[in-house]
Amino acid sequence: MPKLEVAYSPDLYKFYENKEAIVVVIDVFRATSAICTAFHHGIEAMIPVESVEEALDYKNKGHIVAAERKGEVVEGFQLGNSPFHYMSEKLTGETTVITTTNGTRAIEVSRSAHQVIVGSFLNLAAISNYLLIQNRDVLLLCAGWKGRYNMEDSLFAGAVVHQLLQNNFDADLSDSAVTAKHLYQSSNGDLNSFLKDSSHRRRLGKLSLEKDIQFCLQTDYTNVIPVLKNDRLVAMSC
Amino acid sequence: MPKLEVAYSPDLYKFYENKEAIVVVIDVFRATSAICTAFHHGIEAMIPVESVEEALDYKNKGHIVAAERKGEVVEGFQLGNSPFHYMSEKLTGETTVITTTNGTRAIEVSRSAHQVIVGSFLNLAAISNYLLIQNRDVLLLCAGWKGRYNMEDSLFAGAVVHQLLQNNFDADLSDSAVTAKHLYQSSNGDLNSFLKDSSHRRRLGKLSLEKDIQFCLQTDYTNVIPVLKNDRLVAMSC
Repeated sequence: MPKLEVAYSPDLYKFYENKEAIVVVIDVFRATSAICTAFHHGIEAMIPVESVEEALDYKNKGHIVAAERKGEVVEGFQLGNSPFHYMSEKLTGETTVITTTNGTRAIEVSRSAHQVIVGSFLNLAAISNYLLIQNRDVLLLCAGWKGRYNMEDSLFAGAVVHQLLQNNFDADLSDSAVTAKHLYQSSNGDLNSFLKDSSHRRRLGKLSLEKDIQFCLQTDYTNVIPVLKNDRLVAMSC
Repeated sequence: MPKLEVAYSPDLYKFYENKEAIVVVIDVFRATSAICTAFHHGIEAMIPVESVEEALDYKNKGHIVAAERKGEVVEGFQLGNSPFHYMSEKLTGETTVITTTNGTRAIEVSRSAHQVIVGSFLNLAAISNYLLIQNRDVLLLCAGWKGRYNMEDSLFAGAVVHQLLQNNFDADLSDSAVTAKHLYQSSNGDLNSFLKDSSHRRRLGKLSLEKDIQFCLQTDYTNVIPVLKNDRLVAMSC
């Protein structure tokens, strides 16, 4: 029976590490939502890097580079992690580099897994359907906030667990997966109200990013599944 | 406004570390339930140590020593972490040493906090009332299972958050505290049914520890609050 597990922080990844698993990296506000949006709009590839220094090296070599820290575009870079930065036709067919506070770190720690894919509410159904078909171990990896647990990522993890169980995915659930499912069910499908007191939402609210929040909480905006191939994310060809 | 936070694993403690906080160490199955039981039955002090080696040193010096790993009493030791081991009159007034798989590690990482107290469903009301009166930062620290998240500890954390909010404790909640509260509310007060599929419960079930599970899920068995004073736990004098 496949395992269906959730790690609530990249710092807990080591306790769930499983080379046989498909890892779904989750950073709802906003890195993985932005990545899904970018592929929906035709970007060719995105190279995730962990540090601003690495990102700067790429920038100095002439690459298009996105760098976000503390919710804002790092000074000197062209793009951040707002989904709205990735809707431009100028990016179609391009390869960009990206570093974010939490999301790229989650990709980094899980590189050795069977497969690493990128999830957000924007591609919820696509992710769930893909996992159903694969029928193998799944680890939903929440990027969290600087190592801490956050609600929006586990809420998405819970939505995936819920959809898989609704579709009779027969799996051995970790306690974290059971809890994420309960959390999602507690929301009664109203993600926006449910998250109104979450810490990250308040943080983004202070930065006037309400429009981004609304965008990231849409479900099934795209069918694209970004997948890690060697050093870069590309759109999965189904 | 005081902070009310939950760390789901000792490995996440560093992200919540707060020298001003009262830390409540939680290891429902079974270390903190056993410790609460021991003080209820009149033990004088318990010295928590992290490793079996340290425990063995104490044993060789003639101390009464409890050592548990993987749910069982370590070979050569007198006691484990079953609450039923701590009801004997022979322990009244005694000082024992204890090491367990998860609980003693949680005590170890939080030593530098303002105060470290020991919580379990057995002293839920006592803990909640004490925190209400103190009206300062609270960190509920779940021992988890070998670094992983577990349901029973966060369920207890959620019960404390629920009780504090019911009593108008005005606090700044972490996302983990909000989620724990939702989890507790999802249980509708039926802890036993709610935890029936939890991983640790299944683990203990295999060891025929159903009686221990039932005991640990009782609420308000005692008013005792064990508190860390220097190297040892003692009963708080109220």
